[in-house]
Amino acid sequence: MERPRHQGMAKNTYMRWRLPLVCLLWEVAMIILFGVFVRFGPEADAHWEEEKQEMNLTSDIENDFYFRYPSFQDVHVMIFVGFGFLMTFLKRYGFGAVGFNFLLAAFGIQWALLMQGWFHSFKSGKILIGVENLINADFCVGSVCIAFGAILGKTSPIQLLIMTLFQVTLFAVNEYILLNLLHIKDAGGSMTIHTFGAYFGLTVTRILYRPNLEQSKDKQGSVYHSDLFAMIGTLYLWMYWPSFNSAISEHGDAQHRAAINTYCSLAACVLTTVAFSSMLQKKGKLDMVHIQNATLAGGVAVGTSAEMMLTPYGSLIVGFICGIVSTVGYVYLTPFLESRLHIQDTCGIHNLHAMPGLIGGIVGAITAAAATEDVYGKEGFIKAFDFTGTYRTRTPSVQGGFQAAGIVVSLLMAFAGGTLVGAILKLPFWGDAAAENCFEDDIYWEVPEDEESDVYHMHNPDKPASP
Amino acid sequence: MERPRHQGMAKNTYMRWRLPLVCLLWEVAMIILFGVFVRFGPEADAHWEEEKQEMNLTSDIENDFYFRYPSFQDVHVMIFVGFGFLMTFLKRYGFGAVGFNFLLAAFGIQWALLMQGWFHSFKSGKILIGVENLINADFCVGSVCIAFGAILGKTSPIQLLIMTLFQVTLFAVNEYILLNLLHIKDAGGSMTIHTFGAYFGLTVTRILYRPNLEQSKDKQGSVYHSDLFAMIGTLYLWMYWPSFNSAISEHGDAQHRAAINTYCSLAACVLTTVAFSSMLQKKGKLDMVHIQNATLAGGVAVGTSAEMMLTPYGSLIVGFICGIVSTVGYVYLTPFLESRLHIQDTCGIHNLHAMPGLIGGIVGAITAAAATEDVYGKEGFIKAFDFTGTYRTRTPSVQGGFQAAGIVVSLLMAFAGGTLVGAILKLPFWGDAAAENCFEDDIYWEVPEDEESDVYHMHNPDKPASP
Amino acid sequence: MERPRHQGMAKNTYMRWRLPLVCLLWEVAMIILFGVFVRFGPEADAHWEEEKQEMNLTSDIENDFYFRYPSFQDVHVMIFVGFGFLMTFLKRYGFGAVGFNFLLAAFGIQWALLMQGWFHSFKSGKILIGVENLINADFCVGSVCIAFGAILGKTSPIQLLIMTLFQVTLFAVNEYILLNLLHIKDAGGSMTIHTFGAYFGLTVTRILYRPNLEQSKDKQGSVYHSDLFAMIGTLYLWMYWPSFNSAISEHGDAQHRAAINTYCSLAACVLTTVAFSSMLQKKGKLDMVHIQNATLAGGVAVGTSAEMMLTPYGSLIVGFICGIVSTVGYVYLTPFLESRLHIQDTCGIHNLHAMPGLIGGIVGAITAAAATEDVYGKEGFIKAFDFTGTYRTRTPSVQGGFQAAGIVVSLLMAFAGGTLVGAILKLPFWGDAAAENCFEDDIYWEVPEDEESDVYHMHNPDKPASP
Repeated sequence: MERPRHQGMAKNTYMRWRLPLVCLLWEVAMIILFGVFVRFGPEADAHWEEEKQEMNLTSDIENDFYFRYPSFQDVHVMIFVGFGFLMTFLKRYGFGAVGFNFLLAAFGIQWALLMQGWFHSFKSGKILIGVENLINADFCVGSVCIAFGAILGKTSPIQLLIMTLFQVTLFAVNEYILLNLLHIKDAGGSMTIHTFGAYFGLTVTRILYRPNLEQSKDKQGSVYHSDLFAMIGTLYLWMYWPSFNSAISEHGDAQHRAAINTYCSLAACVLTTVAFSSMLQKKGKLDMVHIQNATLAGGVAVGTSAEMMLTPYGSLIVGFICGIVSTVGYVYLTPFLESRLHIQDTCGIHNLHAMPGLIGGIVGAITAAAATEDVYGKEGFIKAFDFTGTYRTRTPSVQGGFQAAGIVVSLLMAFAGGTLVGAILKLPFWGDAAAENCFEDDIYWEVPEDEESDVYHMHNPDKPASP
Repeated sequence: MERPRHQGMAKNTYMRWRLPLVCLLWEVAMIILFGVFVRFGPEADAHWEEEKQEMNLTSDIENDFYFRYPSFQDVHVMIFVGFGFLMTFLKRYGFGAVGFNFLLAAFGIQWALLMQGWFHSFKSGKILIGVENLINADFCVGSVCIAFGAILGKTSPIQLLIMTLFQVTLFAVNEYILLNLLHIKDAGGSMTIHTFGAYFGLTVTRILYRPNLEQSKDKQGSVYHSDLFAMIGTLYLWMYWPSFNSAISEHGDAQHRAAINTYCSLAACVLTTVAFSSMLQKKGKLDMVHIQNATLAGGVAVGTSAEMMLTPYGSLIVGFICGIVSTVGYVYLTPFLESRLHIQDTCGIHNLHAMPGLIGGIVGAITAAAATEDVYGKEGFIKAFDFTGTYRTRTPSVQGGFQAAGIVVSLLMAFAGGTLVGAILKLPFWGDAAAENCFEDDIYWEVPEDEESDVYHMHNPDKPASP
Repeated sequence: MERPRHQGMAKNTYMRWRLPLVCLLWEVAMIILFGVFVRFGPEADAHWEEEKQEMNLTSDIENDFYFRYPSFQDVHVMIFVGFGFLMTFLKRYGFGAVGFNFLLAAFGIQWALLMQGWFHSFKSGKILIGVENLINADFCVGSVCIAFGAILGKTSPIQLLIMTLFQVTLFAVNEYILLNLLHIKDAGGSMTIHTFGAYFGLTVTRILYRPNLEQSKDKQGSVYHSDLFAMIGTLYLWMYWPSFNSAISEHGDAQHRAAINTYCSLAACVLTTVAFSSMLQKKGKLDMVHIQNATLAGGVAVGTSAEMMLTPYGSLIVGFICGIVSTVGYVYLTPFLESRLHIQDTCGIHNLHAMPGLIGGIVGAITAAAATEDVYGKEGFIKAFDFTGTYRTRTPSVQGGFQAAGIVVSLLMAFAGGTLVGAILKLPFWGDAAAENCFEDDIYWEVPEDEESDVYHMHNPDKPASP
């Protein structure tokens, strides 16, 4: 009765056996692989007492846990509350936003522990994990959350779980190429997380293009309270971004510096976002979409360079530019991408992650190329870029070149991977909703009857006023 | 005019003199007892400079504050935002959920500082407190928040304050028996917090059984936005649970390991919860009740064993099982408990805390019994189970037996204590609401007029459009 | 059509060119000044390796980052989520509350880094910043957030940016007088942040007095869900206040002690707030306004003394008193201030910050005056009050006198500064709304159509049911 006209075209969104099957299959696989491969790293293992003696450590405080755990928890909040609530802005897709983000991230971190573990923490047949692995797993999943933003409201939970499986895999490969083969720096992930994640998601949504999406256009907006829920996500991302960009930097000055640079960049970004949000609108009013998203671009754009000697004013400049670029993107570019390039980008990740991610990669390359022993100090210079072993003779300008190459690699991986995954997700049996049912929790969730219907009853003479 | 039919049976919920009296009495007692007993521990006292010299500490960073304060704050958020918002799912009981939780926890932590202090931090007539005491006080109150979940919406704030007074007392006694007399490990509180707290609350709600509760059935559900508020609580509990289970573990590897195990268990739990939520519902749709609650069972169930060498895959298995047990509990067990055993469990704490708590105790006993010097290392083995002094000769299997005894003791304390407290709360002068007024903030709170009524006016020709 | 009657008096609230101009001007100025003045401090600079050797530090963990970063992040959350969401209680001003708070704080922290930097971190022509500067910048902006509470809903974003510019400047001057010239202690800012910020804001709102504000009276209240959003703000302020008061205390015992004292004071405060909220209302029901605000007064009131040997029971007493004072203030004083003194205090900052701030200054003076070498230990005594160099011979009672003088100076700075800034903000071209449009997001924000209007359409036969 509710949607009679399109019932003929209605897709099969029945999840009862498919979704449980995928979830259980994925999880059983995780248990087996963890059983075979994953063990505690030396700082989390009960043999730590002996380890301490061997390493001549005098105090438990030298355990990496105390260097990184507070940052880990901040990153954790960004992934689950930050991304989750940022996407609750849609009036009737709050459950899907926060719930599916929860689901894909919970699966993704497990698979990321394995994938990243094989590449980076594999020793005598075992993956040895510690708090830094947890952070990196959260980071990896961050790129999936970003891609989720592009397809929000248009995919089934099964599609999301499949995308997560592939994207985490590709992320780990790309990360390995960048960090190990090209030996580049990207502690806050401008390239590995944002550029890769965003262009991956944009490619997927391009392939999943829905020509009749205007049928659910009335549900693609926000309501007053959903915009406030989204601000919870925005603020937690904004506040904790200094932790994000510093979480896996070297102990000491690098972590300290990364936090300061990010703090500065984000602060500047808010002012230019507000300026351009007001300026680009005829009535001069502020648009919540910009405040919720473009204010964060400054954090994305110092992801590579935050741990370098970018300097506070350098960070302000980057944030200044990104607030503008991102806001302008929301106003002019998103409609263009949708109408001309058929890229339907629900959350505007092109403006928040793709462009600022590219800027971040470039800023990182320039900052690296401009590095001198004078600015970093003799030891600091070597430590900052890890110019040791094979890379002992690498110069800053060569490093800058490799950093730039990292952007290109990330883009290529994103396009190729996104195409592959998009094609897989296009298969007709994953249970995505018909165009007129997009952006609607009712398809996959038990949704409680709401005040609206109470009000309806109130005015309906056939039913009692208070049910 | 609003509730004419039942006015004859309406109970006296007038709080004006009773609630202030209890609050002021409780708080004056706290001040007097703190004045007599509570002082700063050596690491928070201004004599710390001398203490440092005596203990040969070279740096302020060795102060326990820096080992535990970040975890403390995470636990603090779990108690006040986590539990508080988790319970805001009811459509018209959000003020009561978050407000009464705030009230009882604020009182409870003071009383817990005293009770636990007398048992564990009493030196030459004074209780010496530091950050670990604050964490333990929050933990203790956590068990009250759990019990609150069972009686949510059906009790007056006075009843909650009385329950807090007794439950904190019994918690401290039970904890003393377990940790000191039985010498068992329970850092994340599967037994002391969850098993005890949940069965205590279930016993209380059994005794307070309300045969006519279906009169307020229409208010026992959620609305769209109240479910999103509840997700704030869920996510903060979920994200910070690694801090909860590691907060009072030994410095170094034990804290590190507890965080990793909990992270793994929780991640697995999300996937099986989603699987079974979809599978157990005819339409295959996900139920917010399960996502809000059963996803957390994995944290409860590694409460005892997280600091042991449970291993990451062991944690995944525990989380896997608990997501299933908890979700199945919500679907089948809660209705059964209500209809057959007359246990009205508003938040379903039986599924989130009671059963996973029991599983946690058992997993802890098994993990302890299976411990070997090979797995833990010689020193690590002794340190992990504190096999020193009187307990120098205790073997793992004996330890496992004592751990299992801890479960039984906690259950007995919960049943006996819950019966006593339930009987006290049943006395007729504590101001609880009549059955038809349960789950309704209006009884104890000034509630603002809402949009609903605005809308009503909008369509009511007798009243002005904007009041 | 929407507001026909008052259109003649409607003010020009068009922001399109004015707001962007101010934002861009402010931010360009920041970039230039940062470029000239701001550099990394030694612990965030890449030369840290050399610094470490010079200072004989054996571990990176000695970097101040690890002592203060967790507290910094908690303070950061208080400023942006705490203050931002606390002010979302108004039914139609949530965007303005959280969005303008975001804007002014993001600008304010940059300007505060400069202003406080010139006074406290200026070395050979450069301001050298580290994590402590970030905390202090957040603190400084906290005083602006407080003042914002008094004028919430009645000012344009331009006015807020201008106020921020001036208030941060005056804050830094006042802080310099108190901390450097008077050599007093105020780590949690009872005087510098709360007393100064609140009386500054009250003076501004007095000067901006709007005689016809009752025209927007219907919008000055809350709705059910806006009260829950506000509770997010309340709880984050309440939970993280121990971090606020300890964030810049001396390493070690002082930080530890400050957290404990604040924890105790806040806990006591909740109970007396609840008691008096119920007692002062004829129906005995609790008022969300009190729970949201007065529960925090205990944190304000130990801002000066928390790092001193106030003792836990001393803290309980302070919290006990402040819950009462603050709640009584909301019930009796706020209406009086508005009707008699023409002080329109939207959030009641007089009750939450002004009076408790004064109490905090006085408690600090008394606690300092009562200090003895016996209580603090010989070294602890000197360290606690920094009785070194010029101040080697200062006695506790003299210190108490100076502390008291700090209250007076803060008040004078607040009244003088508030008068000046109020006069500037009264100029007619800053774009504030007319009295009948106050407390309404619609003036400065694109506001989505809401369920209300959906419902309206539902019942309006002339329009389609789903727009």
